[in-house]
Amino acid sequence: SRYEYVKNFERDEVLLHNCWVVVRVDGRAFHQFVDEHDFIKPNDKRGLDLMNECALEVCKNFSDCVVFAYGESDEYSFVLSRDTKLFNRRQAKIITSFSSLFASNYVFLWSRFFPDKALKRPPAFDARAVCYPTTENLRDYLSWRQADCHINNLYNLCYWKLVESGKSRTEAEKLLSTTLSQDKNELLFKQFGINYAHEPEMFRKGSIICKVWADETKKDEKTGQEKTRKKRRLRVVYCDIIGDKFWKENPEILNEESGKKNKGKNTQAKTDIKT
Amino acid sequence: SRYEYVKNFERDEVLLHNCWVVVRVDGRAFHQFVDEHDFIKPNDKRGLDLMNECALEVCKNFSDCVVFAYGESDEYSFVLSRDTKLFNRRQAKIITSFSSLFASNYVFLWSRFFPDKALKRPPAFDARAVCYPTTENLRDYLSWRQADCHINNLYNLCYWKLVESGKSRTEAEKLLSTTLSQDKNELLFKQFGINYAHEPEMFRKGSIICKVWADETKKDEKTGQEKTRKKRRLRVVYCDIIGDKFWKENPEILNEESGKKNKGKNTQAKTDIKT
Amino acid sequence: SRYEYVKNFERDEVLLHNCWVVVRVDGRAFHQFVDEHDFIKPNDKRGLDLMNECALEVCKNFSDCVVFAYGESDEYSFVLSRDTKLFNRRQAKIITSFSSLFASNYVFLWSRFFPDKALKRPPAFDARAVCYPTTENLRDYLSWRQADCHINNLYNLCYWKLVESGKSRTEAEKLLSTTLSQDKNELLFKQFGINYAHEPEMFRKGSIICKVWADETKKDEKTGQEKTRKKRRLRVVYCDIIGDKFWKENPEILNEESGKKNKGKNTQAKTDIKT
Amino acid sequence: SRYEYVKNFERDEVLLHNCWVVVRVDGRAFHQFVDEHDFIKPNDKRGLDLMNECALEVCKNFSDCVVFAYGESDEYSFVLSRDTKLFNRRQAKIITSFSSLFASNYVFLWSRFFPDKALKRPPAFDARAVCYPTTENLRDYLSWRQADCHINNLYNLCYWKLVESGKSRTEAEKLLSTTLSQDKNELLFKQFGINYAHEPEMFRKGSIICKVWADETKKDEKTGQEKTRKKRRLRVVYCDIIGDKFWKENPEILNEESGKKNKGKNTQAKTDIKT
Ligand SMILES: Nc1nc2c(ncn2[C@H]2C[C@H](O)[C@@H](COP(=O)(O)OP(=O)(O)OP(=O)(O)O)O2)c(=O)[nH]1
Ligand SMILES: Nc1nc2c(ncn2[C@H]2C[C@H](O)[C@@H](COP(=O)(O)OP(=O)(O)OP(=O)(O)O)O2)c(=O)[nH]1
Ligand SMILES: Nc1nc2c(ncn2[C@H]2C[C@H](O)[C@@H](COP(=O)(O)OP(=O)(O)OP(=O)(O)O)O2)c(=O)[nH]1
Ligand SMILES: Nc1nc2c(ncn2[C@H]2C[C@H](O)[C@@H](COP(=O)(O)OP(=O)(O)OP(=O)(O)O)O2)c(=O)[nH]1
Ligand SMILES: O=P(O)(O)OP(=O)(O)OP(=O)(O)O
Ligand SMILES: O=P(O)(O)OP(=O)(O)OP(=O)(O)O
Ligand SMILES: O=P(O)(O)OP(=O)(O)OP(=O)(O)O
Ligand SMILES: O=P(O)(O)OP(=O)(O)OP(=O)(O)O
Ligand SMILES: [Mg+2]
Ligand SMILES: [Mg+2]
Ligand SMILES: [Mg+2]
Ligand SMILES: [Mg+2]
Ligand SMILES: [Mg+2]
Ligand SMILES: [Mg+2]
Ligand SMILES: [Mg+2]
Ligand SMILES: [Mg+2]
Ligand SMILES: [Mg+2]
Ligand SMILES: [Mg+2]
Ligand SMILES: [Mg+2]
Ligand SMILES: [Mg+2]
Repeated sequence: SRYEYVKNFERDEVLLHNCWVVVRVDGRAFHQFVDEHDFIKPNDKRGLDLMNECALEVCKNFSDCVVFAYGESDEYSFVLSRDTKLFNRRQAKIITSFSSLFASNYVFLWSRFFPDKALKRPPAFDARAVCYPTTENLRDYLSWRQADCHINNLYNLCYWKLVESGKSRTEAEKLLSTTLSQDKNELLFKQFGINYAHEPEMFRKGSIICKVWADETKKDEKTGQEKTRKKRRLRVVYCDIIGDKFWKENPEILNEESGKKNKGKNTQAKTDIKT
Repeated sequence: SRYEYVKNFERDEVLLHNCWVVVRVDGRAFHQFVDEHDFIKPNDKRGLDLMNECALEVCKNFSDCVVFAYGESDEYSFVLSRDTKLFNRRQAKIITSFSSLFASNYVFLWSRFFPDKALKRPPAFDARAVCYPTTENLRDYLSWRQADCHINNLYNLCYWKLVESGKSRTEAEKLLSTTLSQDKNELLFKQFGINYAHEPEMFRKGSIICKVWADETKKDEKTGQEKTRKKRRLRVVYCDIIGDKFWKENPEILNEESGKKNKGKNTQAKTDIKT
Repeated sequence: SRYEYVKNFERDEVLLHNCWVVVRVDGRAFHQFVDEHDFIKPNDKRGLDLMNECALEVCKNFSDCVVFAYGESDEYSFVLSRDTKLFNRRQAKIITSFSSLFASNYVFLWSRFFPDKALKRPPAFDARAVCYPTTENLRDYLSWRQADCHINNLYNLCYWKLVESGKSRTEAEKLLSTTLSQDKNELLFKQFGINYAHEPEMFRKGSIICKVWADETKKDEKTGQEKTRKKRRLRVVYCDIIGDKFWKENPEILNEESGKKNKGKNTQAKTDIKT
Repeated sequence: SRYEYVKNFERDEVLLHNCWVVVRVDGRAFHQFVDEHDFIKPNDKRGLDLMNECALEVCKNFSDCVVFAYGESDEYSFVLSRDTKLFNRRQAKIITSFSSLFASNYVFLWSRFFPDKALKRPPAFDARAVCYPTTENLRDYLSWRQADCHINNLYNLCYWKLVESGKSRTEAEKLLSTTLSQDKNELLFKQFGINYAHEPEMFRKGSIICKVWADETKKDEKTGQEKTRKKRRLRVVYCDIIGDKFWKENPEILNEESGKKNKGKNTQAKTDIKT
C-alpha cells in the first residue's frame, strides 16, 4: 500500500558479532514496589527466589544462547554466547523479549513464592544489552555486579539493623557514611552479634544460574544396577565468581573449546557449589 | 571499584528530538500462543479486550507522553508526543519498559477476560521505537496499521469460513491467493451470507485509545442542579483513522497548539465514535 | 572466500528519512594552522574566500542534494534536502565524502587565494551529520551558527584591537570577560573609531551559498534583441538569515512546494543581497 | 542563546571499547579518476606510491593509535590499537579526520609522484570504521583485503593483456569469466610469457605500513666507532600477511605485551621483508 514506506523509518541496531552479550534486566522503581508489598528488609528470600525462578524460565526459553546468568536485588544479567544468532543479534528484539518474558513470569509465578500476599500491580523491568569483546571484560562485568551485591548488602544490613535498634534513618545514614567494609563487619559483630560471613550466601553473593556438574543416578535397564554419572545441569548456585576458582572448575561455561574437550571427562568434585 | 570501567561499554541510543515516537509492541510467536489457548478464529473478542486493557494500563502509566494508541491482532502501537522527555528519550529504556509492562499486565489481567481458561504460560512481547518527523508521516504510519488490520481481517474471515465449510487449508489458501478485496466481500456475501460491513468494528478497524470528548454530568454542590460538561477522557474507540474526519474532530490529539486553543470550547458532537 | 565474514562486522547508520540533514565540516586544529600560515587576525579575507570556493565546489558536486550552505571561521554547514537519497542516507559515506572533498579542494585551490604563500601542510577537516525534523529546527540551527559568527567576530575584533594597541593577551581577555555586546560596540567606536556595523558583512554575517534570483541577459537568436530574465543561480551572498526577510524572499530554498509554484514568476527585487 | 538547543540533535556514535578499529578509506569513483588521469593499466606504480605516501602521512599524524596499515588499489585500511582513545573513539570524528587528511595529502603530494601530469580535479575518499573484537577477526580482515588484492590483480592483468593483444573488452571478460586462478596463471604464461610470481610484489600483495626492525648505524660520539643497532622504524613493505610468518616475526605489532617484553632484544633477521 501507499503507506508501507513508513517501515523504512525503522532502525535496526545489530550487536557487534563475536562479542559476549550481556542483557541486564532491572525492576522499574522497585524501591516503591517492595514497599507496597512489604518485602522483608533488606533481603526477602521469597522475592529473590521469585527472581531466580523468572530467570530460570528465561534461561530455558533461550537455552541456545544464554550460557550464564547472575542476579542480585531487582536485577538479573544474562550472558549470551559470543556467537549467538538470536534474532540476528537485533538489539531491540533481544532486550524487549527478555524484559517482557521476565516480567510476565514475575506475575505468573508470584503466588508460588508469595502464597499469602496478593500482587497489587504488575511490575515493569527495563533491560539493556552490552557487548564485551573479551572474556576478561566479561569476567570483570560479572565481578562488578557481584562486588556491587556485596557492598550494597553489607551496607543495607547495617542500615536496617541500626534503624531496627532505634536509630533514625538519617542517623543511620550519617553513621555509615564514613565507614569502610571492615568497620561495617565490626559494627555488625560488636553491636548486633552478627558474623557477616555467616549470612546466607544468596544475600552476600547473589545468585548464579548455569550448567554445573551434578551426579545423576540412573538404574541400568538390563543389569538393574544403579549407575552414577556426572551430567551438566542448569542450577541456581551461590558462590564467588570474582576469583578464578569457579571458572577453573567450570571451564565449559565461557570456553566452549576447552569445554568440549573436557566433555564427560571432568571428574573433579564440585563440592564448593551449593545448589 | 576496578571493575567499574565495564559500564563504559554501554551504548545509549537516544531517539531524535522533536519527532513523533511510535512504540510498537507485538506478541512473540502468537500463532502458537493462541492455538495453545484455543482462541476463537479469526478474532477472539476476549483476547482483543485483554490487549486493550493492557494498552490502557500502559497509557495510564505513561500518561504524560502517550497521546494515542492503536491495536490490532497481537500488536499495539503507542504514539509518544514529539517533545516527550521520557527516560531522556533513551530507546532501550522506553521499549523495554513498554514491552515488560504490557506483558506483565497481560498475565495480571488474563483471568478477568478468560475467567474459565487457565493461562498456560506467560507470553513475551517484542517492541521497537520508530521516529516520525512529521505529522503526515505519523498519520501514514497509523493508516498503514489500520489498512493492515483490514486486509488481514478480511482475508482471515474468508479463510476460516472456507475451512469451516469443509475446504482444506491448502485449498482455502489457493482459492484466496488470486482474490482482490472486492472478490472477498462477494465471496463472504454469496457463499456465507455475511455482509462484511456488518462485522464488528473492533475486528474491521482495530482499537483506538485516546482522549475523546465525553459528556460528564455532575451535581452542583450548592444548587443541587445537574450540569453536563464536555471533558476529554481516555477511551477505547473503534473507528476509521485513515480519513481526515477523525483527526478534524479531534484536533487536540496530534496538534497541541490547536488543541490548546480549542480547549473546552469544542462543542461539536462526536457521535460517530463508539466507545 | 573464508575471510568474507568480516564484512558483517560493518555497521551502517542511516540518517532518519524526511529530516533535513546538516553536514557541518570544521577545520582540525585551525588555531594552529592559521598561525603557521600567518592568517590576518581576526579575519583573513583570503582564507574565507578559499573556504567559500571549497564549499561552492562541494555544492556543485552534490548539486542534487545540497540546497543551502553557511560558512564562518573554519567551518561550513551544508543543508541537504529532506528527501535526499545521497548514498541511501548512509551517514559515514556522506560525512567522509564531504570532509574529504572539502579538504582536497582546500589544497587544490590554495594557491589561487594565497598566490604568495606556500601551503606548509595539508589540513584535515572533521565532519558530522545532524538531522532536523522541522524547518523551524533547521532555521534555528542556521541562526545558531550565524549568532555564533557574530558573537565570536565581535569579540575577536575587540580582542585583537586591544592587543594591537599594546594590551597583553591576558589583559585583553580579562577586560572583555565582563562586557556585553553593546559594551564591545562602544569600545570599538570610542577607543578605535570603528563602527562595527561598517565592518564587512562577510565577517559579521558569515557566508551563504544558495540559489538566488539573478538577472540574466541573453541575446535572442532570431530577433537579435537582448532579453533579461530572472534565473536562480548558485551564489555566495552575505546577509542576515536569522530574521524572516531572507526566507520570505527566497521561499524556494527550503520549501520546494511554494518554490515550484512560484517558479519563474518571482519578480520581486532581491536588492538586499550582496553577491 | 535560544538557538543552542539544536546542538542536542547531534548523535555521537562511540566505537566499542577494547576492539581493534579498522578505518578503511576508499577513493570515490576512482574508475573515472584514473581514466581522466591516464593511469597505467592495471597498476600505475606512481599512483600506488602516492597512495602509500598519503597513508604514511596519516600514520605519522596519528602515530599514537595507528599500529598497521594495508593498501591496495584506491583503498587503505588503518588499524587502530584496541585501546585507542583517539577522539574518545567517536566514530564520525575518526573517519572524517582520516578521509580528509588522506584526501588533502593526495592533492598536496600529487606533483611529487606525477611531475609531468597536472591534477585535473581534487578527489574524494569515503571512509568507514569497523570494530573487531579479537585478533583473529582482525587477521581475517587483513587476509580478506590481501586476498581481494590478489584476485583483482590477477584478473586485471589477464584482462588488460587480452585487450592489448586485440581482444574486445567483452571478449576478454567472457573468456575470463570461467577461469580459476590456475587457469589465469597459465594463460599469462603460455599466451604472454608472463610468470605471475615475478610480477612486482607491490602489485601482487599490496602495501603494508608498520614498524619493522631495521638496522641503524650511528657513530659513537666518544669513541668514534660505528655501532649498528636494531630499531623499529615505520616502513612500507610488500609481503604476505595471510600466513603466520609475518606475524610471528613481528609480534610487537598486534600484541603489545609480547612486543614490550621483546623490546630491543629481537635479533632475528627480517630478511624476507623488502622495504
Ligand atoms: N526490602 C527489600 N528491598 C529490595 C529487595 N530487593 C530489592 N530491593 C529494593 C532495594 C532498592 O530500593 C531497589 C533496587 O534498586 P534500584 O537501583 O534498581 O532502584 P529502583 O528499582 O527503585 O529504580 P530504577 O527504576 O531501577 O532506577 O529494590 C528485597 O529483597 N527486599
Ligand atoms: N485465533 C486468533 N488468532 C489471533 C488473534 N489475534 C492474533 N492472532 C494470531 C494470528 C497470527 O497468527 C498471530 C499474529 O501474527 P504475527 O505476525 O504477530 O506472528 P507471531 O506472533 O506468530 O510471530 P512473531 O513472533 O510476531 O513474528 O496472532 C485472535 O483474536 N484469534
Ligand atoms: N587569524 C585567523 N584565524 C582564523 C580565521 N578563521 C578561523 N580562524 C581560527 C580561529 C580559531 O582559532 C580557529 C577555529 O576554531 P575552532 O573552534 O574550530 O578550533 P580549532 O580548529 O583550533 O580546533 P578543533 O579541531 O576544531 O577543535 O580558527 C581567520 O580568518 N583568521
Ligand atoms: N588503471 C588503474 N586503475 C586503478 C589503479 N588503482 C585503482 N584503479 C581503479 C580500478 C577500479 O576501477 C577503481 C577502484 O575500484 P572501486 O571498487 O573502489 O570503485 P570506484 O572507486 O570506481 O567506485 P566507489 O566510489 O569506490 O564505489 O580504481 C591503478 O593503479 N591503475
Ligand atoms: O539504575 P541505576 O541508578 O542503578 O544505574 P543504571 O542502571 O546504570 O542507570 P540507568 O538505569 O539510568 O541506565
Ligand atoms: O513480524 P512481522 O513479520 O509481522 O514483521 P516485522 O514485525 O516488521 O518483522 P520483525 O518482527 O522481524 O521486525
Ligand atoms: O569543536 P568545538 O569546541 O567548537 O565544539 P564542537 O564542534 O561541538 O565539539 P566537537 O568538535 O568535540 O564535537
Ligand atoms: O565499494 P565496493 O562495491 O567495493 O564495496 P563496499 O565498499 O563494501 O560497498 P560500499 O562502498 O557501498 O559500502
Ligand atoms: Mg537503572
Ligand atoms: Mg530497579
Ligand atoms: Mg536495581
Ligand atoms: Mg514482528
Ligand atoms: Mg506476533
Ligand atoms: Mg503481530
Ligand atoms: Mg569541533
Ligand atoms: Mg576547527
Ligand atoms: Mg571551528
Ligand atoms: Mg565502496
Ligand atoms: Mg573506490
Ligand atoms: Mg576500491
